[in-house]
Amino acid sequence: MDIDLNGILNSKRLAISRALSFVENTDNLDMELTDALFKHLGRAYRIGVTGPPGAGKSSLVDRIITYWRDQGKRIAVISVDPTSPFTGGAILGDRVRMGRHYADKGVFIRSMATRGSHGGLALRAQDAADIFDAAGYDIIVYETVGVGQVELDVAKAADTTLVVLVPESGDDIQAMKAGLMEIADLFVINKADRQGANQAFAQIQSMLEMRHPEKGLWPPQVIKTSALQDEGITDLTTALIEHRQFLDEHGIIRQNFRDRIQFKIQSHIDENVLHSFWTQGRARQLDQAMATEKVRNILPGKIVAALLNDETK
Amino acid sequence: MDIDLNGILNSKRLAISRALSFVENTDNLDMELTDALFKHLGRAYRIGVTGPPGAGKSSLVDRIITYWRDQGKRIAVISVDPTSPFTGGAILGDRVRMGRHYADKGVFIRSMATRGSHGGLALRAQDAADIFDAAGYDIIVYETVGVGQVELDVAKAADTTLVVLVPESGDDIQAMKAGLMEIADLFVINKADRQGANQAFAQIQSMLEMRHPEKGLWPPQVIKTSALQDEGITDLTTALIEHRQFLDEHGIIRQNFRDRIQFKIQSHIDENVLHSFWTQGRARQLDQAMATEKVRNILPGKIVAALLNDETK
Repeated sequence: MDIDLNGILNSKRLAISRALSFVENTDNLDMELTDALFKHLGRAYRIGVTGPPGAGKSSLVDRIITYWRDQGKRIAVISVDPTSPFTGGAILGDRVRMGRHYADKGVFIRSMATRGSHGGLALRAQDAADIFDAAGYDIIVYETVGVGQVELDVAKAADTTLVVLVPESGDDIQAMKAGLMEIADLFVINKADRQGANQAFAQIQSMLEMRHPEKGLWPPQVIKTSALQDEGITDLTTALIEHRQFLDEHGIIRQNFRDRIQFKIQSHIDENVLHSFWTQGRARQLDQAMATEKVRNILPGKIVAALLNDETK
Repeated sequence: MDIDLNGILNSKRLAISRALSFVENTDNLDMELTDALFKHLGRAYRIGVTGPPGAGKSSLVDRIITYWRDQGKRIAVISVDPTSPFTGGAILGDRVRMGRHYADKGVFIRSMATRGSHGGLALRAQDAADIFDAAGYDIIVYETVGVGQVELDVAKAADTTLVVLVPESGDDIQAMKAGLMEIADLFVINKADRQGANQAFAQIQSMLEMRHPEKGLWPPQVIKTSALQDEGITDLTTALIEHRQFLDEHGIIRQNFRDRIQFKIQSHIDENVLHSFWTQGRARQLDQAMATEKVRNILPGKIVAALLNDETK
């Protein structure tokens, strides 16, 4: 790839766009881009926003953008689309909803499609964030639709993870609690003008109190907002800033940085190893084994063993 | 593993439970279980149920169980928990909600935790379904929380995929539409006694009409239900049966069966290849590279290359 490193470092939109497309569209099996950017990483604050569809994540991110733009900060948003493996598409709705920031040079919003591989989505989101980090964006927001495994992985690639719920989520808080507790630094009850907001608030609070966080760990907070009515946004951004300070003071930002590199290295190695294994010959061998008319007569374990043991392909 | 194949084939609960635990708790790197069960697969009808948290999936599955139990069918439910990588836990809420079927010998409900690997979750859900299939269960329901990548993978492992929404999901239908359209055979608008149900219904209908499915493809349907009020359940089960007949008549059941085996074979090979690569020596090498005080001085691409090129570890 022809990486325009100077263009990225000088925050040229074209250079950034091209690098993002590279991340999205290539197998990215070498780490050329990572190595080029590496010395320029570590300044940006990375916020992951996750939660069920319908929680109003995009509207909330829209408000966060406005808040930080008013403070002169530059902000990038990466919308990660878990459905895209099926379509190659991106989250149209989000683009529309955050559209009014498109003319603002201090805001860069990008929907990321993925190309099927599982670990790949989280990895590519991280690569994209690295580009924005190197380009001098102050704040990077990963936004995901859903609360599944990949979304949680993406959230883990952030310094602060915000889990957005709505008053009606009450039923599910119980079910999801263990997993959410593990990743949420801040809970947001959005659409808090709706019925049940106080109940949901109390429910999460009591969940958090039961937990007795270890000393030195951040005690997660619950914040009520209404993105549409522009309420609670200052509470939210204040909590975000407090969390970031906490991370800084406890050396966690540095540890997160290290963990993300290790994740990236390990994922790249895995991709390479599998890429080397799946030669055309082996892929053909598997296809042929499956193409037999009498699929009932094959033994799957035999096919696995044959492919693993054949060194000649 | 000591697989009690006869126990499974005779549908002994203890044998099934032990096989499920095996699937859940081992790396399952050989395909001993798959090969043992293989000749006994293909009878069960596999239904995937997915949709956002709060859509009432568990209540709906509960009604489906009751309906088919009244017809004398045996039914297994696999609740796949995407949050469990963080906790090892399972979906407590679902167990509680479907608890009244626990005493029924014709019903087997199992929450599946996973152990971190991405492809692993979908793969293990499929292994679990194979056990129930071999044990003679007529219907197997995969239930997932969320609409993320892994959940969609799990849904793809089913013959029929049901996407459950609520009237309030309207906002998100637009955003998720491409991905959902690709996988949903049936859309259910649950909690249809709530405001906005007809609007959501019309929205999905018009989406489906715009699509002009190719001849020979199943035209997805929309069904309104209220699981709590026990309304629309017969409509839903009728549509499920129609879809299954359609699949049978078009040879799709057989193709699905083949695709699932191929997915399983490929995933097992991938796991084996990575397992062979990550020797203790290589894992230590990566840890040591990351443990350096001056993480800023490393070049990630160099570490990748060193690990990939060193054949001696």
